[in-house]
Amino acid sequence: MAPVWFQNGLCSDADARLPVSERGFLLGDGLFETIRIRAGQPCLWSAHRQRLTHGCDILGLPQPPWDVIEEQAIPALIIATQMGHGSMRLTWTRGSGGPRGLLPSGQETPTLLITVSPAATPSGFALPGLSLITATSTRRNEFSPMSQLKSLNYGDGLLARREAAAAGADDAVLLNTQGRVAETSIASLFLYLDGRWLTPPVSDGALPGVRRQQILAAGLAEEAPLTPASLASAGAMVVSNALSVRQVARCDGRLLPDPQATRRWEELARDRLGTETPFD
Amino acid sequence: MAPVWFQNGLCSDADARLPVSERGFLLGDGLFETIRIRAGQPCLWSAHRQRLTHGCDILGLPQPPWDVIEEQAIPALIIATQMGHGSMRLTWTRGSGGPRGLLPSGQETPTLLITVSPAATPSGFALPGLSLITATSTRRNEFSPMSQLKSLNYGDGLLARREAAAAGADDAVLLNTQGRVAETSIASLFLYLDGRWLTPPVSDGALPGVRRQQILAAGLAEEAPLTPASLASAGAMVVSNALSVRQVARCDGRLLPDPQATRRWEELARDRLGTETPFD
Repeated sequence: MAPVWFQNGLCSDADARLPVSERGFLLGDGLFETIRIRAGQPCLWSAHRQRLTHGCDILGLPQPPWDVIEEQAIPALIIATQMGHGSMRLTWTRGSGGPRGLLPSGQETPTLLITVSPAATPSGFALPGLSLITATSTRRNEFSPMSQLKSLNYGDGLLARREAAAAGADDAVLLNTQGRVAETSIASLFLYLDGRWLTPPVSDGALPGVRRQQILAAGLAEEAPLTPASLASAGAMVVSNALSVRQVARCDGRLLPDPQATRRWEELARDRLGTETPFD
Repeated sequence: MAPVWFQNGLCSDADARLPVSERGFLLGDGLFETIRIRAGQPCLWSAHRQRLTHGCDILGLPQPPWDVIEEQAIPALIIATQMGHGSMRLTWTRGSGGPRGLLPSGQETPTLLITVSPAATPSGFALPGLSLITATSTRRNEFSPMSQLKSLNYGDGLLARREAAAAGADDAVLLNTQGRVAETSIASLFLYLDGRWLTPPVSDGALPGVRRQQILAAGLAEEAPLTPASLASAGAMVVSNALSVRQVARCDGRLLPDPQATRRWEELARDRLGTETPFD
């Protein structure tokens, strides 16, 4: 029995139930944000809000009730769960109540769901380096606006993540349909190559991650198209998402040879990114 | 208050409620089939069952309880709704009850939901020809196994369908990432070109539709790669899905010049496909 915010108020997760005509469930017609909570506050909130706002415009969803979310829902949830550090997921969908079919009618009542989870494990550089593989089961579609939205359509990520698990790896790198590197199933990817830290551009199918944006804005990496050859020759790698920034130890079985580059990057990043970034 | 089959039994749709940790809702981790009901019987049932079975294998979902579905759920729903003609949607997802994160744990309880709808309008060739446009808002990812599954990840179809509506068209043709024709947002597409009826191969991102398979097996069309130039020069077009087979009147504003070809196709199709196919 965990407290959640569902539609207009706080309730137990057992009481928050979705109608079976919910379009997020039936058709993936919705968006979400996963937000780090630190010392009882959401991190990088304005970036999360901006991305979800943009996603609503692309999908033609109404905007969520931002005032309610900021002034009531988030504070109430954090107080009810006595959350210091952890994560929060905000899900916003077309909802239910319209006619059948793909085309929304405008009569739907949207669904707002906010859930929180305590930080179960330490995040950041305190953890051992990850083992990645390159996914062969699927590709990320850089031609679809969906690749730039954090939507409920997570099918390709699920396939890649299952492939990684079957190979004994922690996560999988997805290539785009042209064979260039996009990101992992849940994180932005940064490669150390010829003395520079590089990450794929959004036009190659990388989700515009809020942590990725922060890292780019701080001058800690540059955008550049990356290929499987880049993966095979990188000296070091780092992955990031809203909840974590982590070092990579292996990619496709190869031990990354320059962990010092990661250590130097971490020092710079701790200096420039501040406490909203999870290094420990 | 419509009867639905939810998990193990029949209930009212108002009583069938999904937990908020449902992975179909959170991550698109599930599949569905839309099935035509004719004279109280599901049409092309074995093809639907085969496709869903295959989809479960690809996504690593357990198989649904086929015996329960065939011997209890479908007959009970059809009797409870006194359904003669209409449609049925069977949704099967990873469900809920496992830990957070992309990787399923195997501890989840899957969700089975079957809903029915009466046929609201006549289907088939009795209806006026559709107006199609070529979608420019998104592309279908022929590199992803998801393009061959009827999954909850319907984001690209939603974008294309909204684009069609904004242009005053009935539906949109999706191209794949290489610029070849795949299908419409909800239907397989058949083009009449140089005296032959052609449809894109599954390898170009066409969903292996059960009606499409039936049409191919009956020798009423052949697979061939199709391009925007094919759309611009086709003499006639037909679209099909499990619920309907319909003629197309216009594509990208061009009136299709050879409606006689559609009429000849319809005659052959009525002859070869039998009563499981909705022509009227």
